[in-house]
Amino acid sequence: MSNQPDMRFRRLRKKGSRDFALACGIIDAARIAHVGFSLGHQPYVMPMALARDDAQVLLHGSVASRVMKHLAGGLPCCVTVTLLDGLVLARSAFNSSMNYRCVMIFGIAAPVTEIEAKVRGLEILTAHLMPGRLAELRPSTRKELNATTLLSLPLESYTVKVSDSPPDDPADDLAAPIWAGVLPLRMKAGKPQPAPDLKIPVAPPKYLKKWTFD
Amino acid sequence: MSNQPDMRFRRLRKKGSRDFALACGIIDAARIAHVGFSLGHQPYVMPMALARDDAQVLLHGSVASRVMKHLAGGLPCCVTVTLLDGLVLARSAFNSSMNYRCVMIFGIAAPVTEIEAKVRGLEILTAHLMPGRLAELRPSTRKELNATTLLSLPLESYTVKVSDSPPDDPADDLAAPIWAGVLPLRMKAGKPQPAPDLKIPVAPPKYLKKWTFD
Repeated sequence: MSNQPDMRFRRLRKKGSRDFALACGIIDAARIAHVGFSLGHQPYVMPMALARDDAQVLLHGSVASRVMKHLAGGLPCCVTVTLLDGLVLARSAFNSSMNYRCVMIFGIAAPVTEIEAKVRGLEILTAHLMPGRLAELRPSTRKELNATTLLSLPLESYTVKVSDSPPDDPADDLAAPIWAGVLPLRMKAGKPQPAPDLKIPVAPPKYLKKWTFD
Repeated sequence: MSNQPDMRFRRLRKKGSRDFALACGIIDAARIAHVGFSLGHQPYVMPMALARDDAQVLLHGSVASRVMKHLAGGLPCCVTVTLLDGLVLARSAFNSSMNYRCVMIFGIAAPVTEIEAKVRGLEILTAHLMPGRLAELRPSTRKELNATTLLSLPLESYTVKVSDSPPDDPADDLAAPIWAGVLPLRMKAGKPQPAPDLKIPVAPPKYLKKWTFD
């Protein structure tokens, strides 16, 4: 078996692409990815926060994490970002489906160890995950930086799949007296919940209202 | 290396468990999982719809799908279900995190081929993904059943991780004059969009309003 990931689009070709701008848009709209790797014959899939720095995907975690050690050590991984956009309600169960945007990135992540690059990468993560907040937070300490592993995965070997269509029922089913269409889905933020140890009378920051969750 | 998945909780032990009811609750609140497997040394992670039938997790796909063929052929997989519940905004980037519920299920999925069991399993999927709709839809045809692969993965080897806490800042950071707390997140449905080929004047069904997306 080849060491190259199999990225052929065998089915549903109309949904597949390798469009870089499209991949970036999906990653930039997401806060978490599902990171897959295998130890021996056993696959693992774990959720992780992510951000993008140009043509690199950034992941981070504790230096104590065995998963981060494995990934930093050169274990091949697949980082998948999925945004579930809607339920497609057709006139049959068979033709019902989901609308989604998905990027699968294949490769080997490299640890970012040079201190300025690491500070910058972690700031990109913070700026992406919590836009506007970085300016309010104190800088990370050297101890915190040393306790964090930052990984960079090239956005080079990837596939994009987008499904964004109404139901596609065969003509025979169109007369069925039932509603058909798409129920759009979107992540939304609720009311900010102050920390129990927030003794200082500060209101939730205004930037929270601007955050979007595709 | 052992053929058993490594399910030890090395870090953040307070978050980990193997509670069956907790695992079921997370799976039942989700509509998609991320399914990981490896071909050769290359891992893949793909989003798939899922449902639960007692102590079995059900996945389905086209018989033409190579992924379904590999999984049905006994390829070890990891099925991970993640619900992102909130952003935990601490007084530092280092202590900021996310609240989430996650189940990782390890095992080998078996194809369900006996016709009554297959019909029942696919109906469980439909009932889970689109509650209330099954009664409105025509039964699946034999051709549709033959075009679908149904897989069943035992909910036996799994781990659960739940993070549901306010920020945990060190005492030194508590005086920082910034807001800290949790921004809750939840998937919500938007306005139903009728299919362009919906010629019959039917309103969106009432059951749509009852659907929840944890």
